[in-house]
Amino acid sequence: MELHKKAIMPPGFSCAGTNCGLKADGKDLAVFYSETPASAAAVFTRNKFPGAPVILGRNIIKKGVLRAIVANSKISNVGTGQTGLDNAARMAAAVAAEFDIPAEQVLMSSTGVIARQLEIEKIEAGLQGISSQLSKDPLAATEGIMTTDTYPKALSLDIGDAVLTIVGKGAGMIEPNMATMLVYIFTDAEIAAPVLDHALRQAVAVSFNMLSVDTDTSTSDTCVIMANGLAGPVDLKHFQKALTHACTEMAKLLARDAEGATKLLISKVKGASDEKQAIQMAKSLVNSPLVKTMAYGADPNIGRVLMAIGKCVDCDVDPARITIRINATLVYQNLARVDFDEDAVRVLLGGEQVVIEAELGLGSGRATAFGCDLTEGYIQENAAYYSS
Amino acid sequence: MELHKKAIMPPGFSCAGTNCGLKADGKDLAVFYSETPASAAAVFTRNKFPGAPVILGRNIIKKGVLRAIVANSKISNVGTGQTGLDNAARMAAAVAAEFDIPAEQVLMSSTGVIARQLEIEKIEAGLQGISSQLSKDPLAATEGIMTTDTYPKALSLDIGDAVLTIVGKGAGMIEPNMATMLVYIFTDAEIAAPVLDHALRQAVAVSFNMLSVDTDTSTSDTCVIMANGLAGPVDLKHFQKALTHACTEMAKLLARDAEGATKLLISKVKGASDEKQAIQMAKSLVNSPLVKTMAYGADPNIGRVLMAIGKCVDCDVDPARITIRINATLVYQNLARVDFDEDAVRVLLGGEQVVIEAELGLGSGRATAFGCDLTEGYIQENAAYYSS
Repeated sequence: MELHKKAIMPPGFSCAGTNCGLKADGKDLAVFYSETPASAAAVFTRNKFPGAPVILGRNIIKKGVLRAIVANSKISNVGTGQTGLDNAARMAAAVAAEFDIPAEQVLMSSTGVIARQLEIEKIEAGLQGISSQLSKDPLAATEGIMTTDTYPKALSLDIGDAVLTIVGKGAGMIEPNMATMLVYIFTDAEIAAPVLDHALRQAVAVSFNMLSVDTDTSTSDTCVIMANGLAGPVDLKHFQKALTHACTEMAKLLARDAEGATKLLISKVKGASDEKQAIQMAKSLVNSPLVKTMAYGADPNIGRVLMAIGKCVDCDVDPARITIRINATLVYQNLARVDFDEDAVRVLLGGEQVVIEAELGLGSGRATAFGCDLTEGYIQENAAYYSS
Repeated sequence: MELHKKAIMPPGFSCAGTNCGLKADGKDLAVFYSETPASAAAVFTRNKFPGAPVILGRNIIKKGVLRAIVANSKISNVGTGQTGLDNAARMAAAVAAEFDIPAEQVLMSSTGVIARQLEIEKIEAGLQGISSQLSKDPLAATEGIMTTDTYPKALSLDIGDAVLTIVGKGAGMIEPNMATMLVYIFTDAEIAAPVLDHALRQAVAVSFNMLSVDTDTSTSDTCVIMANGLAGPVDLKHFQKALTHACTEMAKLLARDAEGATKLLISKVKGASDEKQAIQMAKSLVNSPLVKTMAYGADPNIGRVLMAIGKCVDCDVDPARITIRINATLVYQNLARVDFDEDAVRVLLGGEQVVIEAELGLGSGRATAFGCDLTEGYIQENAAYYSS
């Protein structure tokens, strides 16, 4: 599963990004375009206060066909009532007019401040002529959907003769179901929409739904996949493996670039009574502020790890059976701290990645979750992030 | 329900605190003593990795009678196996010997670093002669159980002819069921142990179990009440009201003095489908890092409030019926942001307290939760807090 050195839009796909005036500078508007109708599937936030693009998107995706995705940053179009729905529809209509495609085959996303109306005229003006600026470089468009991300993210890999490319953004308000996260995936493999839907859900379950930056669930999260079929059919097992790998690698990139993050935090729970409990405990570990600050401080604080497992009060835990490893060093077993080289572990924890492994010794449930450390940077970004 | 200007131990109760050498300086050991056998009840952490004092305490409290509580800070005696259990029993035995009371009537607590053994000899030496240092000032002992708290906390109020005094500590790893929290309550009212137990659970449900600093649940939380009966019987309704009030005021003090906190954060949810959903949403609001940093930044960020309600994906939410108030200012209703004076609200939010009220418009479920803002101070304290 080797990633391309440089991501590229698959054959038949292209994209463009521009500044339409929502932000003072930097791109704030993006279009991803397929030359032909593409099979499509999507998953959206489970937040009960979804944005207008999500409300419309759930309906649009039902037909399983997309030609384009349009997305803006700066304003999220959430908590905006009927005007918000109208504006989201106008975004799709503007793309449809510009590319001469059906409006019902355009999915839209908005990310940024909540409870403010979009400056829709600026978006409509920005979309005019954008079809002449199309590029094969996914980063050209991905910059347009960045909010507090520090760099645009795109990955490509091969599936037989086909290519799969994933782009994403999301730096805060990130917790499964989904993250504040916009992720778009493009492939020239030929796959029917229902199969695509199933494959996407499988991949999201172990990647983006196991990603949490701050337990907060965005109202706008959207993950879409489009398959234009230009490369013909591919082996479905291979496809699933590649899609899951791409989503997992993107989840790690998003966690690592989360607001204020200095390192990736990975928790691996094994031997839980069942998978559901393993998932709950793995998430408890990456979500615990005390584990997150421990990662930041590069301290092998066993107590916080035990606490974060034990706080899953509805899960089965037998302290006597628990084994804990921090960055592969055994630190706890048989109800006692192991005598390990703390200074050596601190050096390991000072790196780019903190991995906490918990073996529960009860069953076969296992799960891996992705998060990041919690730093002053998160506080500063979010205390200063004005809603107006 | 007027609080005394200065807290005092009720008649028949006294306490002492000392430095026994666990900490380099400051008190690290405390004893609370009743001259006569007192009815007693307690609630403990629900964390599945409870400390040795909690494991023993659950058994001790079954008889409903206590003469003393002993507590140390610096080391929590959690994750310490059989040695930990032996050491916890030795703490009680040392108090029993010093005061000539039954060891099974001594409850013990330990708070501090997890997965390290107590230096039990220091504690035993520190307890020798402590019976000659007894004081009526609850702060004399409460200092001995502080960890990252910035000041010792004690409140007293009258219940008819009786007095009720509550002392508490807890500054991080605080979330219901319970908080990293040691709270001891003393009264000279005459109340049987089963009645006391019921009253304590009622009070804790709406106070400490609605308190969350960081969603992390300590392995050592303990809340104990002792009633020595010296003042005779009291009106039980009055007693319940006073106990609940004392616990609620202490919960607010703990939240306000949480690690790094600069202000108290209170969420009030009304009109939820039922009380359980109201509790979930109220806690979601005080636990959301984005709401907490918004409180710190004194920004009326409506979007984050909507997000934190909507992320309760199993709760009933009808966006069209939601009304939001921030520090009593109406900011959102009828699916739209209200045109309010943002500068005025920012001034209000710059004070000591942020109050978020959400009216769901669905039913009669209501709940209030207590938390605090999230600041660089929390990060600094917890990233620097070494486990060794």
